[in-house]
Amino acid sequence: MTTTPIVTITRKESFSSAHRLHSKSLSDEENRNIFGKCNSLNGHGHNYTAEVSVRGPIDRENGMVMNLTELKQLMNDCIMTTMDHKNIDMDVPYFKTIPSTAENIAVFIWDSLSARLPKPELLFEVKLWETDKNYVTYRGKKTEVRSDRRSGKNICGSMSSDSE
Amino acid sequence: MTTTPIVTITRKESFSSAHRLHSKSLSDEENRNIFGKCNSLNGHGHNYTAEVSVRGPIDRENGMVMNLTELKQLMNDCIMTTMDHKNIDMDVPYFKTIPSTAENIAVFIWDSLSARLPKPELLFEVKLWETDKNYVTYRGKKTEVRSDRRSGKNICGSMSSDSE
Amino acid sequence: MTTTPIVTITRKESFSSAHRLHSKSLSDEENRNIFGKCNSLNGHGHNYTAEVSVRGPIDRENGMVMNLTELKQLMNDCIMTTMDHKNIDMDVPYFKTIPSTAENIAVFIWDSLSARLPKPELLFEVKLWETDKNYVTYRGKKTEVRSDRRSGKNICGSMSSDSE
Amino acid sequence: MTTTPIVTITRKESFSSAHRLHSKSLSDEENRNIFGKCNSLNGHGHNYTAEVSVRGPIDRENGMVMNLTELKQLMNDCIMTTMDHKNIDMDVPYFKTIPSTAENIAVFIWDSLSARLPKPELLFEVKLWETDKNYVTYRGKKTEVRSDRRSGKNICGSMSSDSE
Amino acid sequence: MTTTPIVTITRKESFSSAHRLHSKSLSDEENRNIFGKCNSLNGHGHNYTAEVSVRGPIDRENGMVMNLTELKQLMNDCIMTTMDHKNIDMDVPYFKTIPSTAENIAVFIWDSLSARLPKPELLFEVKLWETDKNYVTYRGKKTEVRSDRRSGKNICGSMSSDSE
Amino acid sequence: MTTTPIVTITRKESFSSAHRLHSKSLSDEENRNIFGKCNSLNGHGHNYTAEVSVRGPIDRENGMVMNLTELKQLMNDCIMTTMDHKNIDMDVPYFKTIPSTAENIAVFIWDSLSARLPKPELLFEVKLWETDKNYVTYRGKKTEVRSDRRSGKNICGSMSSDSE
Repeated sequence: MTTTPIVTITRKESFSSAHRLHSKSLSDEENRNIFGKCNSLNGHGHNYTAEVSVRGPIDRENGMVMNLTELKQLMNDCIMTTMDHKNIDMDVPYFKTIPSTAENIAVFIWDSLSARLPKPELLFEVKLWETDKNYVTYRGKKTEVRSDRRSGKNICGSMSSDSE
Repeated sequence: MTTTPIVTITRKESFSSAHRLHSKSLSDEENRNIFGKCNSLNGHGHNYTAEVSVRGPIDRENGMVMNLTELKQLMNDCIMTTMDHKNIDMDVPYFKTIPSTAENIAVFIWDSLSARLPKPELLFEVKLWETDKNYVTYRGKKTEVRSDRRSGKNICGSMSSDSE
Repeated sequence: MTTTPIVTITRKESFSSAHRLHSKSLSDEENRNIFGKCNSLNGHGHNYTAEVSVRGPIDRENGMVMNLTELKQLMNDCIMTTMDHKNIDMDVPYFKTIPSTAENIAVFIWDSLSARLPKPELLFEVKLWETDKNYVTYRGKKTEVRSDRRSGKNICGSMSSDSE
Repeated sequence: MTTTPIVTITRKESFSSAHRLHSKSLSDEENRNIFGKCNSLNGHGHNYTAEVSVRGPIDRENGMVMNLTELKQLMNDCIMTTMDHKNIDMDVPYFKTIPSTAENIAVFIWDSLSARLPKPELLFEVKLWETDKNYVTYRGKKTEVRSDRRSGKNICGSMSSDSE
Repeated sequence: MTTTPIVTITRKESFSSAHRLHSKSLSDEENRNIFGKCNSLNGHGHNYTAEVSVRGPIDRENGMVMNLTELKQLMNDCIMTTMDHKNIDMDVPYFKTIPSTAENIAVFIWDSLSARLPKPELLFEVKLWETDKNYVTYRGKKTEVRSDRRSGKNICGSMSSDSE
Repeated sequence: MTTTPIVTITRKESFSSAHRLHSKSLSDEENRNIFGKCNSLNGHGHNYTAEVSVRGPIDRENGMVMNLTELKQLMNDCIMTTMDHKNIDMDVPYFKTIPSTAENIAVFIWDSLSARLPKPELLFEVKLWETDKNYVTYRGKKTEVRSDRRSGKNICGSMSSDSE
């Protein structure tokens, strides 16, 4: 039996989109207070950059974890076609009810890719740059949420003890 | 009599805006053909970066062409307040009738700064990045346009012989 | 019971500071040998960039792990006010006795933020760029150090088995 | 007993190299199909950027995990001398039989550094940028591979449960 | 008669190529002395970035100097198809006799674009990055060269008095 | 007689320095008002990046305007040796009496290179980045300054009509 290295490969793609941070669960005043200028009525926009990482063993014949051409195609289908030169809130059904924060967009991208990857277990990380000063990273982890009936707020269970 | 060097100083600021490329002078079909995905109905967006350059003699006492703090304030008034986290076509009156191409936004920024600079003759260049793959540069030069009555098209006179 | 994704959000801020690498525990000659040109007598400087990451569950109402405005304010208080346009060794009491290596500055930033975050358990990582060719990353982990009485040197215990 | 923080330090170096993606285990047609334009007969090239990370306790005297000068020298010996301004496939014996994919180059760099570091257990990560749109990351992990005699293909064991 | 602004628009494209600096006009020893490691026998490579600028009046209807889609296509034909994932010296006939210095590649790109642009007079500048530490810029200017029969060297006439 | 293209070549180098903006021609209060936080008593610092451009005809034999190795050496002598890991105001005699604004540093670099270049007439531009948000550009141009005896202020003559 021999071994092969486990390597993470990452590809970057940029897309230009309009959006507005606005939650249907909150009042207009709460939205203004929480989101500030990001709640501006007619929206604003970003050149987002998505970095998608896939992690797995190097194929001993071709020396690759996954063919970048295939990853590029998947990113094109899940990200570019869906959101590039679009209005995220108006043109992407998922975001008609969910605020288009960078956090939620990263999760959306993860779920889309996960559903389409031949080997979804290889999906390792989605990093999404909203501007050159802020980005989010998602690795598919979730935690339980229970509802606090007294306050109506959700209380998150302890975070799973995964290190990152 | 002594001499002092002439130096260009430049400051960069980024702003996040939504826009849609659409010209009121053209039909919907012409707009789609010319602007393609940039004419997408609900708009899209960019993190724009504006680089504003001022050129003049170095003050022999303080060693500056212009105080960057002052340039930063002017850029804030002319660019950030006007367009950051806004929808350029809907929120900026100038663009209600003029397509918000990068070319036109650069001219808009130039004209705004020129009107507000204590010494407008020092304004040298506005460079505007729309994405990390394309930008425009404007130095305040214009050329004459005469109308070709036969075609209805504008014919530009020869470009002024300024080098750049 | 439902679940919510765990996402890491990161914000970047740059600060311009002077410093000199010099350890009071070492002789002048040892300092020169270890730190080389970084020990130059009158100091030198850097545009540092700090990337602060906070990791936690997405709030189901507003779609955020934490409001970036709040993170920005904390970084301003802990990093910018303390070190921007300052001399780290002369103006920051912490560094009067501790060498201002990038490693130690990252730990200083972590400790400052940790003390001020409403939920310090969400603090995930501090990354500090000293130049565009080198950076350090700190995630709050420590290891025991025991003193070797024979050599006077500190011997580090095995590193805690956290993966990163 | 006291504690000292565990910090990761990273240095970046760029090198300009020619290469061609071609596996001796595959036919010419298979190579063209898998590698596409990367299999172009006379090769192509990249400005690669390697980011090498070392992780360990901060020395309480000098405030460093490792002297960057030493890390720079090691990277010079293992990466620059070997591959800069060279043809990876023709000039580096290791790649005469192994396809010079970014994955394999990252592993090669890891193995070279690991063999030369005074404390190889401190080596934490090699990140290799092939272009500004794709990079790979390797942390020294391997997984078992068993041969599937029916298909002649290698079947990888489950990935070790390390998080990253 | 009205006026329209004159604006420069620029698009960037990257291409990955192998090359070797070697002049057929010089001996092997002269080549080694002049080009150093860039003359390494089996070649090396770069991710080049070309920035092509076109300068002209803004069309009053569509707000553009030139449609970026058209510029992108021309750059694809003249640069990408010709040199991306190729060996410049072996795959591009022009460079079989001319050293593939960044200077000469920039001129080659200029001449190719100039021959294909509907309005070649709008071509303003080609900037070519060879690495992130060096680039060249060409604006179509030439100067006369007369041969010095005594030394066999070419003597360049005074540079044309164009400012840039 | 044949022609050869005129091309500009540029090389970038970074240096890390401490400095403080303070003019000996002004009072302490004036210095604080003009320079703000840049006048902070113990100084601050930057990773500066200098881009030096040389412009001339392409040598028909070797395809270069100037050997980059030579330009690199000159930049090392004039910039790196002088200012890298130094305190500009304390370690560079020129700046003992002249405020170390980016404008003045760019002129200092120009004058140093000009004095050392084999063909100083080829020196075209010095661009100096102080942070990633501001830079200055100098092309060797000067303008006359006459003293206004009534106010004690210098009045600059009209700027020479060079375009840039």
